[in-house]
Amino acid sequence: MENYNEKFMDEAVRLSVENVKKGGGPFGAVIVKNGKIIARGVNMVTMLNDPTCHAEVTAIREASGKLNNFDLSGCEIYSSCEPCPMCLGAIYWARIDKIYFANTKTDARNIGFDDSFIYDEMKIPAEKRKIPTVKVIHQSAIEAFKNWDEKTDKTEY
Amino acid sequence: MENYNEKFMDEAVRLSVENVKKGGGPFGAVIVKNGKIIARGVNMVTMLNDPTCHAEVTAIREASGKLNNFDLSGCEIYSSCEPCPMCLGAIYWARIDKIYFANTKTDARNIGFDDSFIYDEMKIPAEKRKIPTVKVIHQSAIEAFKNWDEKTDKTEY
Repeated sequence: MENYNEKFMDEAVRLSVENVKKGGGPFGAVIVKNGKIIARGVNMVTMLNDPTCHAEVTAIREASGKLNNFDLSGCEIYSSCEPCPMCLGAIYWARIDKIYFANTKTDARNIGFDDSFIYDEMKIPAEKRKIPTVKVIHQSAIEAFKNWDEKTDKTEY
Repeated sequence: MENYNEKFMDEAVRLSVENVKKGGGPFGAVIVKNGKIIARGVNMVTMLNDPTCHAEVTAIREASGKLNNFDLSGCEIYSSCEPCPMCLGAIYWARIDKIYFANTKTDARNIGFDDSFIYDEMKIPAEKRKIPTVKVIHQSAIEAFKNWDEKTDKTEY
């Protein structure tokens, strides 16, 4: 809990409450850098017809845009709810330093959200998951990987 | 493999190869509905400075926008590489019917991408993960969930 700052969670929670009033999902998040909120996000899945617009993803996209950097090292995220696997993956790719959350994935399940189910799916082999997943052999699929690996002027991420 | 159509994977792979030439990551994906490609995506993390812009997420956002629907039931996704946890989460939230992929997360690890590492992180309890994750008690965090649960005119997703 060392650096936890309640006012940032207050803001994430406030966003989540406001968003329900506006017709969106009950989730809010803020991204903090050097003691200041640099980005806010709410769930806009139904408002924008975009299944990826969870609060954390929205906040990450805003923070990256503001900093003009896909790498959010040095930032922390405060989310009103435990990030789902999609959002947790986004947090890893963004290299965020620390995650604070309030409600849990179990709380989310209790009001009808699939977070826990998707976490369970992540843990099992692809061939046993509910969404059929097929590894196919494609002769030239590895070409892009080879080209990337050999490229000397690439921007790694 | 039953309904696998090689031409769709050809297109996902072609996108991945083209994207490396353009300076982006070596990943491409297409979304198919009723036998037609309705959306394409490539990795634009470094080009757009957006860590969430993986090929699959990009294709999902485009498909949802075109169909004006966050629910992509009836769609299949062809990805040049096994989806990472972020993209797999997005696929679940989008309710896509089926996943085809060519390169594996191990292939991705071999050229420096963190997909396998993030999968490993997903499987372990939050308190043991590399990114410190703190559950905090916040008195009013559950309020948004209660309001959502009691709301009678909500759009569920």
